[in-house]
Amino acid sequence: MHGSNCVYNPEMEITRPTLLLNKEIALRNIENMVHKAEDLHVCFRPHFKTHQSSEIGEWYRNAGVKCITVSSLTMANYFADSGWDDITIAFSVNIPEIPEMNELASRIKLNLLIENKEGLIALQEQITWHTGVFIKIDTGYNRTGIEANRIPLIDQLLESIQESPLLEFKGFLSHTGHTYQANSTHDIFSRHFDALQKMKALKMRYVSDWPELIISMGDTPSCSICNNFDGVDEIRPGNFVFYDLMQFKLGVCKLTDIAVRMVCPVIAVHPSRNEVVIYGGAIHFSKDSITNIDGKPLFGRIIISDGDQEILLDEKNYLHALSQEHGIVKVAPRDFNYFKPGKLIEILPVHSCLTANLMKEYMTTEGDIIKMMTF
Amino acid sequence: MHGSNCVYNPEMEITRPTLLLNKEIALRNIENMVHKAEDLHVCFRPHFKTHQSSEIGEWYRNAGVKCITVSSLTMANYFADSGWDDITIAFSVNIPEIPEMNELASRIKLNLLIENKEGLIALQEQITWHTGVFIKIDTGYNRTGIEANRIPLIDQLLESIQESPLLEFKGFLSHTGHTYQANSTHDIFSRHFDALQKMKALKMRYVSDWPELIISMGDTPSCSICNNFDGVDEIRPGNFVFYDLMQFKLGVCKLTDIAVRMVCPVIAVHPSRNEVVIYGGAIHFSKDSITNIDGKPLFGRIIISDGDQEILLDEKNYLHALSQEHGIVKVAPRDFNYFKPGKLIEILPVHSCLTANLMKEYMTTEGDIIKMMTF
Repeated sequence: MHGSNCVYNPEMEITRPTLLLNKEIALRNIENMVHKAEDLHVCFRPHFKTHQSSEIGEWYRNAGVKCITVSSLTMANYFADSGWDDITIAFSVNIPEIPEMNELASRIKLNLLIENKEGLIALQEQITWHTGVFIKIDTGYNRTGIEANRIPLIDQLLESIQESPLLEFKGFLSHTGHTYQANSTHDIFSRHFDALQKMKALKMRYVSDWPELIISMGDTPSCSICNNFDGVDEIRPGNFVFYDLMQFKLGVCKLTDIAVRMVCPVIAVHPSRNEVVIYGGAIHFSKDSITNIDGKPLFGRIIISDGDQEILLDEKNYLHALSQEHGIVKVAPRDFNYFKPGKLIEILPVHSCLTANLMKEYMTTEGDIIKMMTF
Repeated sequence: MHGSNCVYNPEMEITRPTLLLNKEIALRNIENMVHKAEDLHVCFRPHFKTHQSSEIGEWYRNAGVKCITVSSLTMANYFADSGWDDITIAFSVNIPEIPEMNELASRIKLNLLIENKEGLIALQEQITWHTGVFIKIDTGYNRTGIEANRIPLIDQLLESIQESPLLEFKGFLSHTGHTYQANSTHDIFSRHFDALQKMKALKMRYVSDWPELIISMGDTPSCSICNNFDGVDEIRPGNFVFYDLMQFKLGVCKLTDIAVRMVCPVIAVHPSRNEVVIYGGAIHFSKDSITNIDGKPLFGRIIISDGDQEILLDEKNYLHALSQEHGIVKVAPRDFNYFKPGKLIEILPVHSCLTANLMKEYMTTEGDIIKMMTF
């Protein structure tokens, strides 16, 4: 692994768990996705739930991005306050928040998602401003949305939307989240293709009545490696700005595409059980894990600076347990010398979205602090 | 389950995931532990990492508590700023933070933990104020600390501490965290007893040279149900103030002792797969889980208000998957009618410490907002 530009500046005096962000890599990831969207002739509406930072939002704006995706009203308000005026809340409408949504809808172009009659009726009764509405389609992830073949329900919703002067039908939106459970890149291609076929079938059925309808899909795995977006009008990847070990394991990014890492002090070494204790626990990394080659949960992989060189230690060295502030790193005997109490080590996180959400700020490799939204 | 005093006040207008705190239950939990410490004739130095709130800290102060435990320098600074002047950082010394510790040591009675020569040498070189030092003992949890039988290492550290005019040896401190992995209350008793024997042996060996030495131990499971604290001078439980499903599953508390619950809006119902989608995900609950009776991870259990009554649904109804903002609740067909889009449901969290850390504020059952430390 190359990338000495990734090493933190030792003058930054890191003393506790710190989320280090390589701005150069993040900018390159943004640039690449902007170009991919251009090549595919689709609108790029990146998901901002990964970084949750108005300052990082500006990096997208500078790359030409004009509209964004968020996952909550709270996040929509935050980004509206920093000048974003075209926002889709990609989370099926949370009925108790509709009164608060009116305030936001009055000042920006706001799109909401519905997936059932209850949500639509509540919107019709309570919304007081012109609002865009997507119908959320489940293409196989089985988390939220209407199965793509439930045409009678979709017809009912569309009929009802047409009767609402304040609601404008925007199109069909899906999240192919099951690409995250793929066993190979081939599996990602086939899950994406299957989802694509379902969305295209909806487009073909409804485009004559709704010539402007938008097909919105595209998670980080599929947007990173797939090239068939036939019929798609808009993509919404989010994680790609940082990537992480989960994406690397999926075969979606290279290690050198991962823009964030945790820097943690070593607290103690326990060679008798091949373990190192770090300051860095569940409240820093989150308890999201992937499965290591030994079948055990893995919360991060270790990067060691050896002189000018960066070394990614193999999977025998990994963050294998987390309590509130403590992390336990399993270390191969031959690599034990890299770990000394007081020394800082760098760890690639499993899931950068959840790690960032906990850390609440970034330190760039240049030593600048970037704040995230708080609530 | 009784406890209608636990129901949130519907006039509070909860619209998004909210951590509800029943102050009455928390006060009772504090009161009970204060009395237990009195009965055992031990000092009560509660761990504040569970609640992380200066306002809740006052509830302890009103109950007579004078000294506290925290898990980081950040947390120590926060509570020192709200008037606590006797604080143990129960986390083996993080060497890069020693310069910052001096400022704190200059204004309060500060105790630190050491478990290796590197930490002690760094303290000796860098500490500029009088500071208490505990030796961290590993009684079988195998996370941090010196195994209790490594007498030569303990002797070396003690000798070295004696040569440091600014460091005062306070005693031996352990955390019997392996009570959390116990399979029965009997198992908790035996793990606690085993740890107790190891700590008592240290006391007997060293008390003639250090007549003031303190034996500090006592996690929430053992402090809640064990009565043999022979030889112990100080207990440091933390989680007991709220308890949670993990403690309930361990047999350590009753359901009516759990002082916190999450209130989450229902987003969608999917009867075809016995699932309900809620607004409430990994960034609200944390991804800590226990194993349900069906062998699958469980992230929370559901409480339903039926008229005036509160009903804890059985384990066929449980929070079984979390993504960033979404939670998926498995629901038994007969209980499906309790769930409607837009309705609020209440969920007992698995691990109250990690949930509180994410939520960053509490709403009391009276409707007051209690803030936590932010950093």
